[in-house]
Amino acid sequence: MLLCRPKMKECCTFRRASPTVFRLYGTIPKCSIRFPSSIPRNTREVFVGTTQHLASTGPQTTAQFLIATVRTLISLTETKMRKVIHELLPAESDLEGLGHEMHALVAELYPICRSITGNGVRETLGRLQRFIPLTVHEVPSGTRVFDWTVPLEWNIRDAYIKNSRGERVIDFQKSNLHVVSYSTPLHKKMRLEELRSHLFSLPDNPDWVPYRTSYYKRDWGFCLTHKQLLDLSEDEYEVCIESSLESGHLTYGEFYVRGESSEEILISAHVCHPSLANDNLSGIAVACFLAKRISQLRRKYSYRFLFAPGTIGAITWLSINESTAHQIKHGLVLAGVGDAGSLTYKKSRRGNTDIDRAATLAICETESKSQTLDFTPYGYDERQYCSPGFNLAVGRLSRTPHGTFPEYHTSADNVSFVRPDSLGESLSVCLHVVSILEQNRTYLNTNPKCEPQLGERNLYQSLGGGSDNKATELAMLWVLNLSDGKQSLLEIAERSHLRFEVIVRAANALKEHGLLEEVSAQSLPRSTERQFAN
Amino acid sequence: MLLCRPKMKECCTFRRASPTVFRLYGTIPKCSIRFPSSIPRNTREVFVGTTQHLASTGPQTTAQFLIATVRTLISLTETKMRKVIHELLPAESDLEGLGHEMHALVAELYPICRSITGNGVRETLGRLQRFIPLTVHEVPSGTRVFDWTVPLEWNIRDAYIKNSRGERVIDFQKSNLHVVSYSTPLHKKMRLEELRSHLFSLPDNPDWVPYRTSYYKRDWGFCLTHKQLLDLSEDEYEVCIESSLESGHLTYGEFYVRGESSEEILISAHVCHPSLANDNLSGIAVACFLAKRISQLRRKYSYRFLFAPGTIGAITWLSINESTAHQIKHGLVLAGVGDAGSLTYKKSRRGNTDIDRAATLAICETESKSQTLDFTPYGYDERQYCSPGFNLAVGRLSRTPHGTFPEYHTSADNVSFVRPDSLGESLSVCLHVVSILEQNRTYLNTNPKCEPQLGERNLYQSLGGGSDNKATELAMLWVLNLSDGKQSLLEIAERSHLRFEVIVRAANALKEHGLLEEVSAQSLPRSTERQFAN
Amino acid sequence: MLLCRPKMKECCTFRRASPTVFRLYGTIPKCSIRFPSSIPRNTREVFVGTTQHLASTGPQTTAQFLIATVRTLISLTETKMRKVIHELLPAESDLEGLGHEMHALVAELYPICRSITGNGVRETLGRLQRFIPLTVHEVPSGTRVFDWTVPLEWNIRDAYIKNSRGERVIDFQKSNLHVVSYSTPLHKKMRLEELRSHLFSLPDNPDWVPYRTSYYKRDWGFCLTHKQLLDLSEDEYEVCIESSLESGHLTYGEFYVRGESSEEILISAHVCHPSLANDNLSGIAVACFLAKRISQLRRKYSYRFLFAPGTIGAITWLSINESTAHQIKHGLVLAGVGDAGSLTYKKSRRGNTDIDRAATLAICETESKSQTLDFTPYGYDERQYCSPGFNLAVGRLSRTPHGTFPEYHTSADNVSFVRPDSLGESLSVCLHVVSILEQNRTYLNTNPKCEPQLGERNLYQSLGGGSDNKATELAMLWVLNLSDGKQSLLEIAERSHLRFEVIVRAANALKEHGLLEEVSAQSLPRSTERQFAN
Repeated sequence: MLLCRPKMKECCTFRRASPTVFRLYGTIPKCSIRFPSSIPRNTREVFVGTTQHLASTGPQTTAQFLIATVRTLISLTETKMRKVIHELLPAESDLEGLGHEMHALVAELYPICRSITGNGVRETLGRLQRFIPLTVHEVPSGTRVFDWTVPLEWNIRDAYIKNSRGERVIDFQKSNLHVVSYSTPLHKKMRLEELRSHLFSLPDNPDWVPYRTSYYKRDWGFCLTHKQLLDLSEDEYEVCIESSLESGHLTYGEFYVRGESSEEILISAHVCHPSLANDNLSGIAVACFLAKRISQLRRKYSYRFLFAPGTIGAITWLSINESTAHQIKHGLVLAGVGDAGSLTYKKSRRGNTDIDRAATLAICETESKSQTLDFTPYGYDERQYCSPGFNLAVGRLSRTPHGTFPEYHTSADNVSFVRPDSLGESLSVCLHVVSILEQNRTYLNTNPKCEPQLGERNLYQSLGGGSDNKATELAMLWVLNLSDGKQSLLEIAERSHLRFEVIVRAANALKEHGLLEEVSAQSLPRSTERQFAN
Repeated sequence: MLLCRPKMKECCTFRRASPTVFRLYGTIPKCSIRFPSSIPRNTREVFVGTTQHLASTGPQTTAQFLIATVRTLISLTETKMRKVIHELLPAESDLEGLGHEMHALVAELYPICRSITGNGVRETLGRLQRFIPLTVHEVPSGTRVFDWTVPLEWNIRDAYIKNSRGERVIDFQKSNLHVVSYSTPLHKKMRLEELRSHLFSLPDNPDWVPYRTSYYKRDWGFCLTHKQLLDLSEDEYEVCIESSLESGHLTYGEFYVRGESSEEILISAHVCHPSLANDNLSGIAVACFLAKRISQLRRKYSYRFLFAPGTIGAITWLSINESTAHQIKHGLVLAGVGDAGSLTYKKSRRGNTDIDRAATLAICETESKSQTLDFTPYGYDERQYCSPGFNLAVGRLSRTPHGTFPEYHTSADNVSFVRPDSLGESLSVCLHVVSILEQNRTYLNTNPKCEPQLGERNLYQSLGGGSDNKATELAMLWVLNLSDGKQSLLEIAERSHLRFEVIVRAANALKEHGLLEEVSAQSLPRSTERQFAN
Repeated sequence: MLLCRPKMKECCTFRRASPTVFRLYGTIPKCSIRFPSSIPRNTREVFVGTTQHLASTGPQTTAQFLIATVRTLISLTETKMRKVIHELLPAESDLEGLGHEMHALVAELYPICRSITGNGVRETLGRLQRFIPLTVHEVPSGTRVFDWTVPLEWNIRDAYIKNSRGERVIDFQKSNLHVVSYSTPLHKKMRLEELRSHLFSLPDNPDWVPYRTSYYKRDWGFCLTHKQLLDLSEDEYEVCIESSLESGHLTYGEFYVRGESSEEILISAHVCHPSLANDNLSGIAVACFLAKRISQLRRKYSYRFLFAPGTIGAITWLSINESTAHQIKHGLVLAGVGDAGSLTYKKSRRGNTDIDRAATLAICETESKSQTLDFTPYGYDERQYCSPGFNLAVGRLSRTPHGTFPEYHTSADNVSFVRPDSLGESLSVCLHVVSILEQNRTYLNTNPKCEPQLGERNLYQSLGGGSDNKATELAMLWVLNLSDGKQSLLEIAERSHLRFEVIVRAANALKEHGLLEEVSAQSLPRSTERQFAN
């Protein structure tokens, strides 16, 4: 089906080099090749107008030989594409550098006072635009988004508590955590007694400032260390919060990277926390660097990177994009990916989707120990993506799960709590997950009755030297045996306990020899099915 | 659907109390409300003729507000009903008293000589009628019940073995276990040699008298301690059994408690054993007290309490009630529930029914350790209820499983072998199981796309104070996330590892706020399906 | 359906012997009985022309009684058949003798130089014909078999390496392992340097000769001990391989044993290895003795015993028999069944077929420890039978899995590596597997509502004395409870954890009393389904 044969004959010449070796010389005109859709349009010129000479063995008719030759060319191109995808995975030495770059971004964004709305988010997104061409969306206050309403916009310039000597005993300028997020404006003198019910501290960690919000209840408050609280004497205090809570916008950033297919992979990071480094400047930094790398390479999937305030941001995005959200086939929420703990993947609500399997495989294949957790409806924005009306295949990648480390939601979640090597490993795992999804295919063994004769095709040797050859040989047998048009390479990797890349390498070799045929994604019900119809 | 709107307008007035608060004044006429069937007929007057004033917030139309108001009233009524069900579960202090009352009943019934037919069963049932209005059924000997025939009725007045000095060396008056049940009448002198083959003892427990029967083979025999056997010298003995085996009746007791639905929960206890306390006076006592408590309260299900002789009694009941047995949706056989061992639930043949899940949950939620066993076709009357032609969802609650304790079927299974606290705990677990089944519902999240805004509805605070609030908040997220119209609260409790009552409390709160809609039981295939069609 | 009633009346007489006992006298003519197909044609005369008198109880019509009588006769005959199958299982003492006989066969076949083609295979098959009437097939070189081509036939008379003193330092006459199988003919003098790249040894086991082949690449080589290699001094060597590689045939042996049904059980052993005892003279010997025993007895299934070269032999057979291969319902590859290790069963690709369950049960019921492994596409000819285009229910029985013992594919896999008792146990397990498959049935409980009254039918006592009676009684309850027309005896054995033979004995007793009815195999989808359609 690949060739328009008559034309082919006209433009190519071939010569018998020895009794068993033929050589092809000629220029393949563009019109003569009907490409499979797996070859991206912008790479098709690889074939065109170039002179090719390739060896083939055995007695073949001209037509057979030409078909085989072009098939090989297409395979090579696909292999080249795959190499590009493989370049996703950075070298060990690159990772170290990337870890430090991401850590620098965390440090840069750390002082900004973010909330679920306001200029802190805008400034954060603006700085990300240095790395990726983020589109910034502004959704007006009062917009109805499902059961919620986009809130008033909150901004703050200054806040303090002054004692009677005029000293700032609590000062927003020192840490934006000192003010409860969404505190209403205030300027008033009051006694400690009146003030006390608006003060929040952590008796168990007397040196840390807690992080608190009051988004949906008009109130005001200050957070301080327990030591500061104990130091407050009976006095009259001047309490000032120079904030505004007015009709404005909810701001989120979005970066859409078009791929071969309109099917999407979603990467989502919340951007609403003020000076908290792991939660979630780590997620923002990894998502940003992931986006940058993916946008530079060819890809099968389209990618959507979302930088939005937690809960209300995801709800707003889903509300606006309700009709197209089903294009998200796989997704990852990135949150808390910079601490020293080991990797944690939390499954999607459906629990057995490709993202669940790919992420589990990817974290298992890293060197550090890792864990996969079942879905719970508690956590970050996976709560919204996995609400029963959407039920998207979105899981979450974290390191130490939120709420299980004492620094969580305190001033101790600072820049030094986040480590360059942890950021690097998290980025690497994301790329590994993406690489698995990009390379995952479902094949049909074209020679299902008994094994094909791999030796005769030089398939064993064609893999090049190396100790991995034995594994690839075994992988070829697994791929041939299980490629019934239903089981994907991901499932074959799981069942065979071989590394995914070994399975892919084997499948590619088999496909190049015509022993596998890709099954179109449309005929695969699982990954596209939506389990909740409302 | 709840309101007949035009009439509603005529009879109620409402007033705007503040910009966001409305107050309703008025009398809701009976005719204007169409009640959901979940509201029992005898509680509907709660709504009628009373003046209501309730607060509501936000801009609503009159109709919306009225509908919301009546919905709230209905919810409150349902909550009240649920409270009644909760009263099923007795306080710790009540349990102690109930345990002693049940133990007294065991002691009272202990001396009666029961068998599968005869006056012992009648007298036992008669005494239960002090507690519950039991219907006593008499089925004539010779009645064909499936593969079986109701046997002749057996009664016994006296029995003994006298030595040549006229001393009763074995005396039925001392223990009815001394005579093999269904022994044919006899009065004859014989040498020890002839007698010996009719004597049964337990060499391993030389102080205990075994329990034996010969229901379906005409024979006679005596059971005695091994010490008594060894003490028998060569002598001529006068052997007398004053029994009768004549056409009569098989007797069983039944207590049917009508509920909202014609779907039934069966509680079955065998009543055929003579002086054996745990097997099964314990089951009789717990079933009796369970029946008494359930009959006093409102309930969704109808209940059927069956006190019948083992095997032949259950077969007789099933044969007579073959056409309506499918109404039994859940059932428990109670047997051996008074010993000091921990709780054991044996699953139904189907193994994954609501009773299996509810009983497993209930025994796990008790403090003592417990076990759930898979179904086997060996045991008590669950053998008949779970025969493939009925395949009912009937499990068995026991403490130490029968046959695994040495006292089983011996005189050592006496009144002191049964403990008041064990009886109390068994009763409590039965009530817990019933309470789970009564409260189990399947809901549809009416707001399935993203989470609803719980905070705005004061749902978090509306739960009242207490440390359980965090669990209820988490439970609300679980219920919302999994209520897809298929998964019941029982399944949600299992998956979330939260206590069932916490899940129910969360579901009730959500339902009262219109966030859940009950799915009618008819559309749920699982619990009503019969897996064997003959 | 069993009787042609009018004729029946004419030829039999019956008499009422007492109010409840009838006796039948008479001759049942052949024409009057329509036999179920489960009664083999050659055993039907059991019924015919003989005078029968049998007891029956209860009030029955003449027709009922006659039907019951003939049903009993048929049951008895089937029981007799089953006894024959039971004779499959040899006594402990027989096994010892059989083990030694099989070991003698291994020793006899050991010196023959086999390969995937050639006279070695012919001679091997010829010797097996002493035991079983094997059909020998010859398939011409060049025949296309799926993706493969039957290779040229290889034969060898002599081969050696002589040093300059004319001494044979490597001599094919001492061990046929010394020559790489399919070595091309050669007679040439060369220096050690040139020779060295054609020499293969095992440095880690310096006393062993490795086994190597070069079937699909024209080459030549010698295998030798590492000590021999080190002893080779710089010298001019005369290298001679008197082999031929010419158009000829691939040879395989087949023995088909017809049974009641055309459904087949396949037993397959590879015959291509030269002097290697465990791999696979052990498999050949066990398959041969299994065939001999099965052919002597009545059986439900037809059996096909295949002795073919590995890979190419199985592929050739499947290619030739492609259209009828679906008749293979169960199969076992026998390979490496003679070493001292414990038994290993490797599951079929489908993993949950009757052969998988029967073999797992059978090796669990042996005394020695055993293991069941999941399918992998690496191994012996199960690779071909389980290729996705066939997907047959074929597993593999081995002892120590190939490749996991150091003697594998070396001269240390010699006659003393194989043990008579291991061969005996392997044979016994094969017979046990066959006996399970032969006796496996699926029944429908004819009395599904409540238990039937087993006692009245003397079913408990009818089993004869013995400690197994309690197990059989329990087994009867299991069989009655689970025989819903879907679950087979094999599944009931698995679920009840009772021995299969106890389940069968119970089922037979129940069937003889009319309490079970066999469900025809056609209505059972699982065992006949093919999971891959191409």
